[in-house]
Amino acid sequence: MSETIMEKSEGRVSYHDSVEEMVKRIRKDGMSNVFDRYALQEKIRCKFCLQGLSCQLCSNGPCRISEKSGQDKGVCGIGPDAMAMRNFLLKNIMGAGTYSHHAYEAFRTLKATAEGKTPFKITDVNKLKWMCEKVGISTNQELNDMAIELATLLEDQQKIGVEKDNIMVEAFAPTKRKEAWKKLNIYPAGTVHEEQNCVASCLTNVDGSHVSLAMKALRLGIATIYNTQIGLEMVQDILFGTPTPHEINTDLGIMDPNYVNIVFNGHQPWIGVATLLKAHKNEIQEKAKKAGAKGLRIVGSIETGQELAQRFPIDDVFVGHMGNWLAIEPLLATGTVDVFAMEENCSPPAIDMYAEKYQVTLASISTIIDLPGIKYKFPYDPSEADSIADKLIELGIENFKKRKERNIEAVVPQKIQKAVAGFSTEAVLGALGNKLDPLVDVIAKGKIKGVVALANCSTLRNGPQDWVTVNLTKELIKKDILVVAGGCGNHALEVAGLCTLEAANTIAGDGLKEICNALKIPPVLSFGTCTDTGRISMLVTALAEHLNVDVPDLPIAVTAPEWMEQKATIDGIFALAYGTYTHLSPTPFMTGAPQLVDLLTSKAEDVTGGKIALGDDPKEVSNNIEAHIMAKRKKLGLS
Amino acid sequence: MSETIMEKSEGRVSYHDSVEEMVKRIRKDGMSNVFDRYALQEKIRCKFCLQGLSCQLCSNGPCRISEKSGQDKGVCGIGPDAMAMRNFLLKNIMGAGTYSHHAYEAFRTLKATAEGKTPFKITDVNKLKWMCEKVGISTNQELNDMAIELATLLEDQQKIGVEKDNIMVEAFAPTKRKEAWKKLNIYPAGTVHEEQNCVASCLTNVDGSHVSLAMKALRLGIATIYNTQIGLEMVQDILFGTPTPHEINTDLGIMDPNYVNIVFNGHQPWIGVATLLKAHKNEIQEKAKKAGAKGLRIVGSIETGQELAQRFPIDDVFVGHMGNWLAIEPLLATGTVDVFAMEENCSPPAIDMYAEKYQVTLASISTIIDLPGIKYKFPYDPSEADSIADKLIELGIENFKKRKERNIEAVVPQKIQKAVAGFSTEAVLGALGNKLDPLVDVIAKGKIKGVVALANCSTLRNGPQDWVTVNLTKELIKKDILVVAGGCGNHALEVAGLCTLEAANTIAGDGLKEICNALKIPPVLSFGTCTDTGRISMLVTALAEHLNVDVPDLPIAVTAPEWMEQKATIDGIFALAYGTYTHLSPTPFMTGAPQLVDLLTSKAEDVTGGKIALGDDPKEVSNNIEAHIMAKRKKLGLS
Repeated sequence: MSETIMEKSEGRVSYHDSVEEMVKRIRKDGMSNVFDRYALQEKIRCKFCLQGLSCQLCSNGPCRISEKSGQDKGVCGIGPDAMAMRNFLLKNIMGAGTYSHHAYEAFRTLKATAEGKTPFKITDVNKLKWMCEKVGISTNQELNDMAIELATLLEDQQKIGVEKDNIMVEAFAPTKRKEAWKKLNIYPAGTVHEEQNCVASCLTNVDGSHVSLAMKALRLGIATIYNTQIGLEMVQDILFGTPTPHEINTDLGIMDPNYVNIVFNGHQPWIGVATLLKAHKNEIQEKAKKAGAKGLRIVGSIETGQELAQRFPIDDVFVGHMGNWLAIEPLLATGTVDVFAMEENCSPPAIDMYAEKYQVTLASISTIIDLPGIKYKFPYDPSEADSIADKLIELGIENFKKRKERNIEAVVPQKIQKAVAGFSTEAVLGALGNKLDPLVDVIAKGKIKGVVALANCSTLRNGPQDWVTVNLTKELIKKDILVVAGGCGNHALEVAGLCTLEAANTIAGDGLKEICNALKIPPVLSFGTCTDTGRISMLVTALAEHLNVDVPDLPIAVTAPEWMEQKATIDGIFALAYGTYTHLSPTPFMTGAPQLVDLLTSKAEDVTGGKIALGDDPKEVSNNIEAHIMAKRKKLGLS
Repeated sequence: MSETIMEKSEGRVSYHDSVEEMVKRIRKDGMSNVFDRYALQEKIRCKFCLQGLSCQLCSNGPCRISEKSGQDKGVCGIGPDAMAMRNFLLKNIMGAGTYSHHAYEAFRTLKATAEGKTPFKITDVNKLKWMCEKVGISTNQELNDMAIELATLLEDQQKIGVEKDNIMVEAFAPTKRKEAWKKLNIYPAGTVHEEQNCVASCLTNVDGSHVSLAMKALRLGIATIYNTQIGLEMVQDILFGTPTPHEINTDLGIMDPNYVNIVFNGHQPWIGVATLLKAHKNEIQEKAKKAGAKGLRIVGSIETGQELAQRFPIDDVFVGHMGNWLAIEPLLATGTVDVFAMEENCSPPAIDMYAEKYQVTLASISTIIDLPGIKYKFPYDPSEADSIADKLIELGIENFKKRKERNIEAVVPQKIQKAVAGFSTEAVLGALGNKLDPLVDVIAKGKIKGVVALANCSTLRNGPQDWVTVNLTKELIKKDILVVAGGCGNHALEVAGLCTLEAANTIAGDGLKEICNALKIPPVLSFGTCTDTGRISMLVTALAEHLNVDVPDLPIAVTAPEWMEQKATIDGIFALAYGTYTHLSPTPFMTGAPQLVDLLTSKAEDVTGGKIALGDDPKEVSNNIEAHIMAKRKKLGLS
């Protein structure tokens, strides 16, 4: 896509040409789709909901707040600020709960693996030992015993109440932050405990103070990162390997209709990995060939795709990453997908019509996924991973036959984009010779002005798919700001070509370009998924500890330029508690709550050192971020 | 209030004359109040929200479904049935989460008590031993050790995943139900685990099937009753004594402005009990007298009031129960309250203006309560119970002085209603000579046609406060149907005079009247709070086991004639899973979801044996319930 996209969003639904191309087919085929549904909804949006001034919790409602016509409170008496914050906290709880669910599955998968009940093995032994050391588990024992003890401790740490020590926060949070959180009374118990406290606070007639509700959100955010995300990501590293930078293929062009294509979609890589391991077996490829295919391939979709791509090389079997969630309907419309296997969001609820039209077999491979029209449901259990993989392969081969029988026409956009994926704290340190000084040095010298962590989704609210994400990132790297990316936004950047050294040479500012070339890294470091927010924080924490400063003093910022769902909001809230300047777009549903907006965008800075910044214009947002980074540089005595 | 209330609701806001009287003062004083706010909101209700066709979860929304104008799906693709069920499941999760929070506090209070850290003691030793026997804990150990082991097991049972045995369901659920639940795949893990699975399922683009979402709600409902409610109620019995029937005073007339009045409001009785124990000390009464008061009194409000009233006798210090949540603003407006201490819902968010106008000190005594204008916050910790009680007494005495200084005029409705409170399975069995045969016998003979469990709140949506609750109950007892009541609806019946033997003689049908007189029980058995739904189920379970039939075969029904908040909905969903005919009014926000309505009100009967019944008219609802009970009697071979 043209560099002048910022002037060319009119009439488009996506930044990506491949998606644009597929939407033409989708519309021609008369299929309902997310882009057109968005346009339809635009006509009947509720202004109260948009402002956060609508509540449907109890039977005295639904209520709306309209100060003009005298409804300045809900029936119960709740005011606009608490109503909006309660709505927002409920979303955060959903996000935290979903991460907790993912972590629960991770921890029991590690345990089952150590017990020999899964097709997985302990791949990164060093990380297992390192984690055990971090949390006080003896490494003077057999690997499997160590893994079981770790899995048990991590699951327990998700659930601890206020009486037990928070081992995870103690082990992984920045020293100065821990002090600050204790002072603010937001040092958390386990995520599950905080979810419970928050959800009880959101009940009708419980917590009517927007300040109190906001503080509870902060505490929940901290628990989510330390007691859930970091443990789960480290466990995935232990099981499947710590990510290392390598080149992958992205975009819809990776699809080939002549293969049996099994797509893994969601966030939880268990069955994806099991199937990927199995698909490399000759017998499986032979089976696919017997059915008339050239072979059987594994395709990564959204975050599960990223979990796979950051750990496994692209080869004959694993073909790469298709893109983020708004590309799902376009992907299915290529007429090349045999199995679409889902285990978490985003698994859009109306894809049964795509399955029917383009001959796709839909499969749920978790306890949480269900959709109208799904026939195949394999609730995840670690001990079933192997047999579920078998079933998916069978389904894929069967579907391939039907796809050929029905002569489903394949329409595949001819674009494959290279990207370097697989960054991690370890990888960054590796690139720097296992010390942080070179990074500090280039920041001090101003070659890199600062670092922005980008973690989020993709939405249509603030423009075409990935429009703000890609354009904001371009602006940031132009300004010599290194971007570290996670989530569906990261896939946006990968597909847009920004996770390449080429992007450093064609888009980045001179300083950043120099460093990228010296270290052979892209100006945007693909750090994984939204679940890797914890992983990204580990790098920042390392930097803060190295410099012996608090997080709010660092020349960094966070942006979620296209947050869409509820895990993104809890990540954003964590960033606020962590003490960072945190840009959110679209504006959350709280514009009708002036005191709340003031609290989050201004007063918060005096509380946590962080604040929420709003804005949908990439240029303006990037200028604000740069100004923030420059102010922090100045405070540190850097020019 | 007149017996002809059903013809006289026009112009009223409440069934209760005392509330009507106070609302006159409130309006004269120009105070915002829940009744007038309801009327204001009626003018701007959102029809989409009322139908369950509005979603604000993600940034692609807010969405509405309007099939007429082409918006037959949300942006993500979700349809009307799944949207409404997801909204409803989210409410159920909130209810389950709040019960879990209450249980967490109960279990840690038991543990701390056994460790000698609270002012409480193990009051019901037999119940402790009985519970230990039920869940497999050795009773051959010291009482405190037993209590600690029980508390630990119960908290663990809230949190167990699918790998561990569900000891609570095994110990307390009806045999035939357990089999049914296993077949339906709704036999649960711990409540907290099910909450997590449900909340992750509600995330955007996860579960788009209304059937799947509904089944998850059922599983959550079962976990809530067995893994949370029953444990928590039994622990409260162990700590504070198992309820026994005795006469109490209710209604606003219990207030006397010449005393220091400390009101306990919410659901969790910890600090209420601690303060009640302390207030009986002479030194405290003397302190109050020194401040010019006649003494210091404890007043029960809503569910905490019920928890106290069902266990402690009315005396000079504990004056009784003021009523349910819609009576809170009226209570504060009497100008007699010195401390209003809150620990759970309902603690309405706009009562700060009442506190100011009528000189009330507001205090939060939990980690979840906060309101604008609260100055005194004492987050609950069992080891702090004693000192929090001290502080509240101090605040009460100080407030009394200010109340007198400011010459706050007291306006107290001159009505005190007697009620018999304190029924429990044990108490019912006690009244029956410790066997169920006499109850079975009178049911078999048709003296009592059947039993209806009434558990819920109070709402304005279907008429004045308590109008449907009281009138429906009158209709039921007229039909010789025994009512067992819990929750704010129970307080409605107590205040309305239905929990008296007199009501049997003036309102009940001849058969029920005869039995009530023979056993000296009211036609409405006050079984406690909404948290006592588990307790009520224990009686029903005992009946089912005794007769060796499944729950759906019994001549019983459940009604929530004025459900308001989210714990009521999860109780209702449990009833559905339990296999009972379950009347809900007001109609939940799902009328725009035809398949969902059909599932819950009709198809469910083929699944769980239970179903949801709707309707806001007391006569019609009572006729339907009677018809259901008669059909079940017929099936059992009873006339």
